[in-house]
Amino acid sequence: MAKSVLYMSMSLDGFIAGPNERIDNGLGDGGMRLHHWLMGSKAGEPVVQRPSGVNGEVWDAFMTTGAVVTGHGTRTLTDGWGGDHHDGVPLFFVDRDAARLQQDAPPRVTYLEDVAEAMDRARAAAGDRDVLVHGVGLTRHALAAGALDELHLHLIPVLLGQGRRLFENLPPDHVELERLSTVEGEDGVTHLRYRVVV
Amino acid sequence: MAKSVLYMSMSLDGFIAGPNERIDNGLGDGGMRLHHWLMGSKAGEPVVQRPSGVNGEVWDAFMTTGAVVTGHGTRTLTDGWGGDHHDGVPLFFVDRDAARLQQDAPPRVTYLEDVAEAMDRARAAAGDRDVLVHGVGLTRHALAAGALDELHLHLIPVLLGQGRRLFENLPPDHVELERLSTVEGEDGVTHLRYRVVV
Repeated sequence: MAKSVLYMSMSLDGFIAGPNERIDNGLGDGGMRLHHWLMGSKAGEPVVQRPSGVNGEVWDAFMTTGAVVTGHGTRTLTDGWGGDHHDGVPLFFVDRDAARLQQDAPPRVTYLEDVAEAMDRARAAAGDRDVLVHGVGLTRHALAAGALDELHLHLIPVLLGQGRRLFENLPPDHVELERLSTVEGEDGVTHLRYRVVV
Repeated sequence: MAKSVLYMSMSLDGFIAGPNERIDNGLGDGGMRLHHWLMGSKAGEPVVQRPSGVNGEVWDAFMTTGAVVTGHGTRTLTDGWGGDHHDGVPLFFVDRDAARLQQDAPPRVTYLEDVAEAMDRARAAAGDRDVLVHGVGLTRHALAAGALDELHLHLIPVLLGQGRRLFENLPPDHVELERLSTVEGEDGVTHLRYRVVV
């Protein structure tokens, strides 16, 4: 059975983007720091690429997922990954305007209003692979709906100071987690895997 | 040379206390969850005690420090640990009202207005041992003053949702960290040690 897994790079102080996020500044000011571990260069230009070592194994984990789910904010900032996040796996976008958006959707893209339904559809589409989940708002809604199975956080050795936090505006109810593994990656990145205890 | 080391238990979502902190509710609502790993019981009553295993080794590290520094908030909530945090080591309290407070200070307690001076005095008093640093406001001021050498965080496997964050209201300047170690403790607690890169 496919699991829904949140993959996010987060600073030690809890930020997943710097301040002043905009479409032309998708990671916010200085937010690229959180993704250095995924950046190489080609002909002098920085490019996202598979890292080597332990970090590469983590890359492989999220790049072999069988479906992707995200919400309005991440879809907008990434332009919906042009309809293909990796290997043409199905994309599920949660949006309150799902019906209208679906009319112009590219192939393999499904818009849904309900986060739990989106996660169920993505799990079914992913088959025996996991579902890659992204986004701050989606995380909040998926936790509230009990629709998130695991958190895989890439903890970046920096205090960003300001920006967008991964965990913000949650209700005061505790969400207990079970630690699955802690792996020291290259460049000081620590990969933390937790199961959401329901 | 003694190092100044922040020791704090923090939830995965960055909280070190629950909401509604008061003198009679020092950890905030539900904040005791963050300290379960330090709690045992004696005659049916919960007590703070040395845990066994890896967690016990971490306890030993902060209970063999040679001086303690904290700020107004933590001092107030703990009543200044009654003048003795552990083994009678010197206590340094940073407070804007230092001169007045010093007049009624118990032995071994020094009030200072300046965080860098407090940290220097504590390092000197600690000799070849480290300095235990506690507190949210103090962390912010000590980072700004370049007076914090290391962060040792005990990452608790829970999302608290609301409460007081350890890292809040920092300037947007990045503080780079060097990972020193990642150790899986008992009860899902992960001990993260970082050096502040200056």
